[in-house]
Amino acid sequence: MNALPLRILGTGRHVPAREVTSHALDARWQLPAGTTFARLGVATRHYVGEGETASSMGASAAQQALANAGIDSSQIDCLISACSVMEQPIPCQAVLIQRALGLGDSGIPAFDVNATCLSFVVALDMAANALALGRYQRVLIVSSEVASAGLDEAVPATAGLFGDGAAAVVVGRSSADDGSALLCSRLASYGSGAEVCRIRGGGTRAAHDKDSAADASRAFWMDGRSAYRFAARHLPAFWEHLLHDAGLTAAQLRYLVPHQASGGGLDHVVQALGLRSEQVVRILHATGNQVAASLPHALHHACVDRQLQRGDLVALLGTGAGLAIGGMVLRY
Amino acid sequence: MNALPLRILGTGRHVPAREVTSHALDARWQLPAGTTFARLGVATRHYVGEGETASSMGASAAQQALANAGIDSSQIDCLISACSVMEQPIPCQAVLIQRALGLGDSGIPAFDVNATCLSFVVALDMAANALALGRYQRVLIVSSEVASAGLDEAVPATAGLFGDGAAAVVVGRSSADDGSALLCSRLASYGSGAEVCRIRGGGTRAAHDKDSAADASRAFWMDGRSAYRFAARHLPAFWEHLLHDAGLTAAQLRYLVPHQASGGGLDHVVQALGLRSEQVVRILHATGNQVAASLPHALHHACVDRQLQRGDLVALLGTGAGLAIGGMVLRY
Repeated sequence: MNALPLRILGTGRHVPAREVTSHALDARWQLPAGTTFARLGVATRHYVGEGETASSMGASAAQQALANAGIDSSQIDCLISACSVMEQPIPCQAVLIQRALGLGDSGIPAFDVNATCLSFVVALDMAANALALGRYQRVLIVSSEVASAGLDEAVPATAGLFGDGAAAVVVGRSSADDGSALLCSRLASYGSGAEVCRIRGGGTRAAHDKDSAADASRAFWMDGRSAYRFAARHLPAFWEHLLHDAGLTAAQLRYLVPHQASGGGLDHVVQALGLRSEQVVRILHATGNQVAASLPHALHHACVDRQLQRGDLVALLGTGAGLAIGGMVLRY
Repeated sequence: MNALPLRILGTGRHVPAREVTSHALDARWQLPAGTTFARLGVATRHYVGEGETASSMGASAAQQALANAGIDSSQIDCLISACSVMEQPIPCQAVLIQRALGLGDSGIPAFDVNATCLSFVVALDMAANALALGRYQRVLIVSSEVASAGLDEAVPATAGLFGDGAAAVVVGRSSADDGSALLCSRLASYGSGAEVCRIRGGGTRAAHDKDSAADASRAFWMDGRSAYRFAARHLPAFWEHLLHDAGLTAAQLRYLVPHQASGGGLDHVVQALGLRSEQVVRILHATGNQVAASLPHALHHACVDRQLQRGDLVALLGTGAGLAIGGMVLRY
């Protein structure tokens, strides 16, 4: 692909009300103190409090992103929700966020893109296409997840991994001389791995299948070993392909912003892809895996807390349910 | 917007196994014979049978679309699912369809786009952008719905309206001389109407809100009068805007392919938009409202049964949950 004129104008995030430390989870699950952190690399995470929903968190993160971009919400001409599990099945998540932002009468186009953990990458890709063609001028992308709604406490190795939260990014078309660009973007999906990470209940199939214990299966389930094997098998070649498309070496990147899948997964990324550990943005210890919100949240962290500079090269990369693997390279 | 080089290469559909006539529903609901048809304009619809799911129906419709396009599934380089309510929350619907097509090891990018009833319009728009930029060569879009999973039989005026089913469209980049194009496309979303058409249960909010009767609210609910008022208020101006963008008059269109919202809604479209009734493609009497699958199913009907010809002008138009209104004009 040719580079597209994409510029990140502002980022934001929302931290939910209720902090739950791994110490507290160790106690709840009667595990020796330190077990959850040692296993998963997550020291603490936040869950939604009273009244917090995916749309309220998404709107909060969006407001911060808009403020950081220095633009008013009315200047947005498209709103994309990039979440995995929705707040409710109908209408789509994006219009609920639009309403929570006070834009419910605006007519601003609002729709959802969903590729589970990689939703943000796909949404950013779609936004870049539309901006490149002059279809929109400023697009707001919001990822908001209430992972805590789908955790099975009987499986601490999975339940301890996730956290709630939201992140948002405002993007626009770069001008001819500012140098910001989407250099390349790839997504590879493998439905043969659909059973590896899943929530089977709560959709239309379970509703028709009254005999099965549909409600019991509404918890997230993951075969962590298979997910890890998938990443180990596909990541290195995917990464080479991505760098080749960008015409870069890994050393030229200021940061890699990975999906915060797990502590082991992040360690693997550093080792397998030949990166220096300071190049890899990690927020997992403080957030848990926030599903689709992890990538834009880590990008926000790179932009704001780790001071990504205009002109810096940054890659996004992740594996997720699907199974799927996706990535892109941006000049900030 | 400038016209984009979009060409519909093939369309397909899947009719679910179980036919349910309005006569049968009248009997079940102890209504005078003919009531459901007279009220809703739906004579019959199909519901999924044993083993049929959104992904199996979607794959079946996709196979027909691929056959009609004369291309092999391996030649697709992107698969977009354009459904409202998913078969299961994780992974996304598109990878389940990809797997059902036997493409589970292909790595073909697969993701979902959701704007409830207007999902297909948004997915086609996204595909057109990607094709115009040369990012993909052939995109498969699949809309598959099991509306029967969310019907509240206590409300015949809503429960009688919907049907299950799937439709699929293969699109490619038009060549310089074939004339096929997306002339214009618009979406307007109004989250202030989010309560008018909804399923509130089954998502992350209900999972955290154990006190409410979350399961009871997993049925689709619609304030039909407000939905109709929304359409009456917004459709005429939206339609004028769409035709203006296309540089056309309504008389130049071979067909308008509307979302099959309801009999009254379709009558309103014919009257309010100044169309001849033979210009308006109607399948509602035989299918019910198939949510996101209605628009591509009606488009399939226009292409195959009503013999849309290359060079003909055709508009897609609909209102849906959100509330939202969307449309596009194509040269076939």
